Amino acid sequence: MTPPSDPLTPERILEATEDVLRRYGPAKATVVDVARALGVSHGSVYRHFRTKAALREAVTGRWLTRTELALTEILHASAQPAPAKLRKWLETLFEAKRHKAGDDPELFATYEVLMGESTVIEKHIRELVGQLREMIEEGVTEGQFAVDDPAAAAQAVFDATARFHDPAYAADWQKPAIAAEFTAVTDLLLRGLRA
Amino acid sequence: MTPPSDPLTPERILEATEDVLRRYGPAKATVVDVARALGVSHGSVYRHFRTKAALREAVTGRWLTRTELALTEILHASAQPAPAKLRKWLETLFEAKRHKAGDDPELFATYEVLMGESTVIEKHIRELVGQLREMIEEGVTEGQFAVDDPAAAAQAVFDATARFHDPAYAADWQKPAIAAEFTAVTDLLLRGLRA
Repeated sequence: MTPPSDPLTPERILEATEDVLRRYGPAKATVVDVARALGVSHGSVYRHFRTKAALREAVTGRWLTRTELALTEILHASAQPAPAKLRKWLETLFEAKRHKAGDDPELFATYEVLMGESTVIEKHIRELVGQLREMIEEGVTEGQFAVDDPAAAAQAVFDATARFHDPAYAADWQKPAIAAEFTAVTDLLLRGLRA
Repeated sequence: MTPPSDPLTPERILEATEDVLRRYGPAKATVVDVARALGVSHGSVYRHFRTKAALREAVTGRWLTRTELALTEILHASAQPAPAKLRKWLETLFEAKRHKAGDDPELFATYEVLMGESTVIEKHIRELVGQLREMIEEGVTEGQFAVDDPAAAAQAVFDATARFHDPAYAADWQKPAIAAEFTAVTDLLLRGLRA
């Protein structure tokens, strides 16, 4: 076993884990496979991630964080009024999920399995609903939205758009009608929030 | 084999099929099991339902029709204004699905498998979206709703409430928070339809 040329960072381990999961599937992938892909001992991997479960949880968290970062950018960078920002945010969430499901279906299916094992999905949903709440509160401050309970409204917007972000609907996301359905739901929700 | 005392009606066959499905599960239940439960030959069953697939489709259709009938009643019997009627209709749909899932989980799981094999679910969804459209059109006539495209709005209301009728979410329907979530989504949608 030759020592790796680059230092063994958590990021490199997570990248290799994603590759191994894609190749072998979540049922068969082992820490030994990850170590072999990196040309290191499995002990070196365990120094960064103490258990196989911790490694799997970290790789799922990384996958979800990528989507969160794209959404945070809209939340903070955009100077648009809240209704336009909220629409853009929902479009970006849908696009991100649709691309993940369509471009690499094996990896997407793998992540669905991993998410069933972990609590990171709950943290992800809390983060997304929190971002929705921020935009709704902005809209109330701007006088664009009339909402009594922004937290409940944020959860309602998240629930009402499940068809466009819940992996249970991934099979529908390649259908031609889905874009019009997304627009109809988003229009209706934005009208419902409006002052 | 003793001849049955009652005439062998399609309804009796469908009832027996539901029992057999509940007992053996969808993978194992056969037409012979249904015939045995009724004390008739399997030929007698086939005289009413020409294939096993036709029998399974009929039993699924009957199961879905029960929900449709309760909803049709609200649609036609109620003298309430459209917004109240639409809310009542959504509550009834959610209650019907939740009871089916909660009272008899094996049978519910069985129907989920059967629906995957059949096109009756598409007919069911068309029926439900059609009823929603009727209520939205009523609301427009009454001046309660302002909607340009009632068909698209009906589909949007159906899509946005998926969490409260799609069997994919059945596990969430027994959670305490679900009632408040249902109310928040319904309020938001009704506000979105409002003139």
